[in-house]
Amino acid sequence: MNIHKHVSLNLNLRGLGESATLAINDRCREMKKNGVEVLNLGIGESPFPVPNFVVKALKMYATENRYLPVKGLPELRKAVADYHWHKDGVKVDPNNVLIGPGSKMLMYLLQLSFYGEIVVPTPCWVSYVPQAQLIGRQVQLINTNFEDKWHMSAERLAELCESEHDTYRPRIVVMCYPGNPDGGTYTAEELKEIAAVARKYEVILLSDEIYAQIHHRGEHVSVAKYYPEGTILSSGLSKWCAAGGWRLGTFTFPENLDWLREAITDAASQTYTSVSSPIQWAGVTAFKGGLELERYLWHVRRIFRELSGRCAEMLRESGARIHPPEGAFYLFPDFTPIADKLNKRGIMTGKDLCEALLTEKHVATVPGVSFSRPANEFTFRMSYVNFDGATALAASEGVPLHENLPDNFLDTYCGKTLDATKRICDFMNQGA
Amino acid sequence: MNIHKHVSLNLNLRGLGESATLAINDRCREMKKNGVEVLNLGIGESPFPVPNFVVKALKMYATENRYLPVKGLPELRKAVADYHWHKDGVKVDPNNVLIGPGSKMLMYLLQLSFYGEIVVPTPCWVSYVPQAQLIGRQVQLINTNFEDKWHMSAERLAELCESEHDTYRPRIVVMCYPGNPDGGTYTAEELKEIAAVARKYEVILLSDEIYAQIHHRGEHVSVAKYYPEGTILSSGLSKWCAAGGWRLGTFTFPENLDWLREAITDAASQTYTSVSSPIQWAGVTAFKGGLELERYLWHVRRIFRELSGRCAEMLRESGARIHPPEGAFYLFPDFTPIADKLNKRGIMTGKDLCEALLTEKHVATVPGVSFSRPANEFTFRMSYVNFDGATALAASEGVPLHENLPDNFLDTYCGKTLDATKRICDFMNQGA
Repeated sequence: MNIHKHVSLNLNLRGLGESATLAINDRCREMKKNGVEVLNLGIGESPFPVPNFVVKALKMYATENRYLPVKGLPELRKAVADYHWHKDGVKVDPNNVLIGPGSKMLMYLLQLSFYGEIVVPTPCWVSYVPQAQLIGRQVQLINTNFEDKWHMSAERLAELCESEHDTYRPRIVVMCYPGNPDGGTYTAEELKEIAAVARKYEVILLSDEIYAQIHHRGEHVSVAKYYPEGTILSSGLSKWCAAGGWRLGTFTFPENLDWLREAITDAASQTYTSVSSPIQWAGVTAFKGGLELERYLWHVRRIFRELSGRCAEMLRESGARIHPPEGAFYLFPDFTPIADKLNKRGIMTGKDLCEALLTEKHVATVPGVSFSRPANEFTFRMSYVNFDGATALAASEGVPLHENLPDNFLDTYCGKTLDATKRICDFMNQGA
Repeated sequence: MNIHKHVSLNLNLRGLGESATLAINDRCREMKKNGVEVLNLGIGESPFPVPNFVVKALKMYATENRYLPVKGLPELRKAVADYHWHKDGVKVDPNNVLIGPGSKMLMYLLQLSFYGEIVVPTPCWVSYVPQAQLIGRQVQLINTNFEDKWHMSAERLAELCESEHDTYRPRIVVMCYPGNPDGGTYTAEELKEIAAVARKYEVILLSDEIYAQIHHRGEHVSVAKYYPEGTILSSGLSKWCAAGGWRLGTFTFPENLDWLREAITDAASQTYTSVSSPIQWAGVTAFKGGLELERYLWHVRRIFRELSGRCAEMLRESGARIHPPEGAFYLFPDFTPIADKLNKRGIMTGKDLCEALLTEKHVATVPGVSFSRPANEFTFRMSYVNFDGATALAASEGVPLHENLPDNFLDTYCGKTLDATKRICDFMNQGA
C-alpha cells in the first residue's frame, strides 16, 4: 500500500523550500561529506564563542527544568528592558518584553497575528517573505538600490503610504540595521526622518536590531529613540552573544501595542510554549552584560571592522560596487557593473553567479534573489565569518584595545575568509 | 496620538486566549503574590528533577553555540530512533526523525502543513483545537465517554470514516496515551484493532506517546508496532525526563510520509530554525538512557502509581466515577453522578466547579471543557504533581525497588497532593 504517497499539503507550503541560508549550510555539509572543502560564506553565524561568563551562567542554571511564563522569565524581561535603556536610550517596561525561541519565530507570530500590510525594503532578510507565504499572505516590498545604500528613505515610505488611496492602512514596516544582508546602517538623521513619516501615517515599525552591538564602531542608534510609541524593537542573543544555536530572541513593544503583544503571546502559548529555561536564565546574565562583555564586543568589532574593510576593497578592485561596511558580518557586493562580461560567460542571473562560485571556486554565498532582489542583479551576500573565532579572539586580546590590529593579523587568523574573497575576485577577473 | 489602539488582528486569533493549562499556572502565581497559598493541580509538569546524568550532559555541552540542522542534530535523531526501537520495538530510520522545541510546536506545524481533516477523540489535550483555530481550520472531534474509558474505539473510528460520503478523505487521527487528561491507556488488543481500521481507511495516526515512559508499570505499547507505515510517533523530554522547561520534542515519521516530514521541516526552517544546541546535545544522553535512567523511572513510576491509586480512591468515595490510573500524572474524575447535588449549590458547569474549587478551597484544576468535553459535564483534570519531587525521589531511593512504598510515605512526601485531593472531596461532600 502506498496511499500515503497521496500528498495532501497546504498549498501555502508547496514549493516553499527550506530557508535559503540554512539550505546553503546543509549543501556545504553535503559537499564536505563528499570530500570537497567548501569555504562557506553562506550562513550568518558569529564565528566567536559565547562569552565565557555567559557559558558559566548556563552551566549554573542547568538544573532549571520548569516551564517558564509564556512571555518569558521576569528577570530576563527586566534585563532586556534595562539593556535597551542603557544601550539605546529607549525606555521600556519589562511587561512589554516578549521572549521567543529566536526572533524569527516572533516575527512569524507577528505576521500571523497582525491583520494589515507588512512592508519590507529589499534587500531583506530571507525569511520575511516565506513567512508571509506560510500564512497565505503577501508582503509589500520596497525595492531600494545601490545608490540609496540599499536603504529605504523617508520619502519612499511616504510615497508608499500615499500611493494606494488607503493612507492609513494598518501597516508594519520592517527595518533591519545594521543590515542583513548589506552590512550598512542608517544615520541618526535618516532615522529621525523615517520616524516622522511613520508617525504621520501611523505606521508601526518593526526595528530588527539584532546586530546593534555589532555596529563596527559601537555607535548603533535605534529608531525607537525617535518613535518610541510606534516601534517594536527586536533583539536577541544570536549575533552579539554568538549564541545563534541557543535560540533566544526578544521583542519589545510600546505600551499602546498591548493588543498585538497579547495576541502574539496567546499564539506563543499554543505553539512554542516558552523558551528553554536554562537558556533564559543564561540570557539574564548576557543581557545584564558588564565589563567582560564590553571587552569581548570591542575585540569582535575590531576584527569585523578590519576584515570587512579589507574584503570590501578586494571586491571593489575586481569590479564590484560596494558600500563601506558599517556593521554586522555581511558584505553585499553588486557585480552588475561587469554584467556584460558575466553574461558572455553564460552567467545570466545572480543565482547563476553563486552557483558558479560554488561549483568552480568552492565558495558558498547567497544570491540577491534570496533577499528579494531582482533575479538578474549580480548581487550576493557573503558572511565573512568562516574563520576560527576563538583563536582570532584570543590573538586580538594580545593587542591593546586602542590600537589597530597588526598588519599580518588578518592573514594569520582570518586567512580562510581572505582566501574565499580572493577566489571570488579571481572568478570575476577570469577572461578579463 | 492613540491610533495604535486601533486594533487590527487576524480574526483567527481574536478571543483565542492563552493555553488553558498555562493560564491556570499564571493565575496561581498571581494568587500566590496576593498571599493565597494555592494547591496547584493545574499544570502538567513532572515534579521530579531532571536525571543527574542528563544535567551533567547539558553542562558539558554549554559551549555549543552553532545553529544545528533544521531537522535536528544527527546524533540526537539517531538516539531517538534507537529509543523507539529499544522501547517500543518500532524500527525507525534516523533520517525520519524531526526535532522541535516541544512536540506542541511540531503539532502546530503538522496541522499547518497537512491539508486534510484532523480527528481528535475527546477528552483531548488542550492545544489541538486552538492550534487549528490559529490556522483558520476546525478539528473533527470524536466524543468518547466514561464507559469507553475516555478512549476512541476502533468501531468509532470506522464509523467516522464511513459516515461522510468521503471514506478516503485525507485524515490524521490524534491519539494520546498514556493519556492527557485521563491517565489511562489503550490495551495492545485495542491498538491492534485501531491499526486495522486505520490501515483499511488509509488514515494517518499521530500517536502522542510523550508519557510512554510514565506508564505506571512500565508496560507501554505503541500503536506504531501494529501500523508502522501510517503512524507518526511523538515523544520528547518534557515528561519522562522531567524537562518540560527545556523544550525538546520529537516526531518520527514512516518513510512514505516523507512529503509531510519535508513540508514540516521547511516550515520549521522559517519559524523556529532549530532547537537549542546545548539542549539537543543533552538530549542525546537522555534518549540513550541506560541504567541510571531506568532506576530513576522505576522510582518515578512507583510514586505516581501509589499516589494516583490513593487519590483515585478518595475521589471515588466522594462521588466521582474514575478509572484506575495507568500512566502519566493526571486524574480525570467525573462528578456527573452527583450533578443534582452540585446544581442545587448553583454549580451548573464543569467550569463553575473548578472555579469554586479554586476560590473556596484554593485548589487549581482544569475543567473538562478545556479538553473539549461538554460544558455541563462535571469533569476536570488534576495533575497530582504538587509535591517536592526531589525529596520524594531521594526518599524512594531508600526503599528497595521490589517493595511497595511504606504506609506513611505518601503522607510524608506527597502530603500537599493528598491535602488538595482531600479539599476536593470535602467540597463534594459539603451539604451532603
